[in-house]
Amino acid sequence: MAQDIAAEEVVLSTKWFELVAKRPPSFAEPHYSIRAHDYVAVVAVDAKGNFLLVRQLRPAVDGITLEIPSGHVDPGETPEESARKELLEETGYVADKIEFLTHLSPDTGRFSNRMWVFFAGNARPSSQPEHRVEAGIDFVLYPGTVRKLVAEKDFDSALNHAALFAAVLQGRLVL
Amino acid sequence: MAQDIAAEEVVLSTKWFELVAKRPPSFAEPHYSIRAHDYVAVVAVDAKGNFLLVRQLRPAVDGITLEIPSGHVDPGETPEESARKELLEETGYVADKIEFLTHLSPDTGRFSNRMWVFFAGNARPSSQPEHRVEAGIDFVLYPGTVRKLVAEKDFDSALNHAALFAAVLQGRLVL
Repeated sequence: MAQDIAAEEVVLSTKWFELVAKRPPSFAEPHYSIRAHDYVAVVAVDAKGNFLLVRQLRPAVDGITLEIPSGHVDPGETPEESARKELLEETGYVADKIEFLTHLSPDTGRFSNRMWVFFAGNARPSSQPEHRVEAGIDFVLYPGTVRKLVAEKDFDSALNHAALFAAVLQGRLVL
Repeated sequence: MAQDIAAEEVVLSTKWFELVAKRPPSFAEPHYSIRAHDYVAVVAVDAKGNFLLVRQLRPAVDGITLEIPSGHVDPGETPEESARKELLEETGYVADKIEFLTHLSPDTGRFSNRMWVFFAGNARPSSQPEHRVEAGIDFVLYPGTVRKLVAEKDFDSALNHAALFAAVLQGRLVL
């Protein structure tokens, strides 16, 4: 199976992504995918092992979810800078060390970007007095285990599960 | 935080999905998401513990990936029926028992559908002589461990990692 080079066309542009039609020579019809900035997801725990989580309205799933801090990598930022920024903006916490664990494809079927997974241990509240958690996002300090967390009905993002798995595989979290 | 009810509009329709704009009252701008049929992913191993995998061209990521069998749930099918169908079509294998492990959101940020994760143990080649693996898909019988598999550079679908994690958490695979 040779690797096809795909002709491509931007079908629709939004502020957050482009919808791209690609037509590899071996494909009978165009394939549609989403081109967006890369994405970071931060598995973060405080000194006691509590998870730093966020609750927010997610229009795609018509509901309020429980998730790990995450967001897009803005132009000019490194993924690690984005990870620190999202952690602070969404939880009000900082960590001395933000460790890169892996990068993955969020969906090989539809997304062309990458998800960068980081781990922050011993996270602590920022001492910057001006810090306020982003509007529309509720910070949750979650005391349960990995097994308890992944069983939570509203913690059902497969991308978050993949990030936790990376932290387990690399010995940052125990099962 | 009250749960908003979003007004919505289909912005673009393709054969595989609709791009939907939703505008919850608390949002300043519309939010775009993808509405598609639900999706199944099958963690399958043969009697010796080899993983049943597929290699295929993925235009979204401009490359050939290594993945677990997966696909959409067609209208009229149950997720379990789709899982059996994808397993057979993509690998030529069948299993007496296909176990449901969990369902997750493939991406709470952009997808409204669900991913259903199944486990098939003791999978074996179908005895149907007419069976041929789907065009454009190469079947791979992979002899490594979970840790070796997730470290493979081309096995980088976060959705696949989440499916393997479910199989580990539920004791179907060992780390």
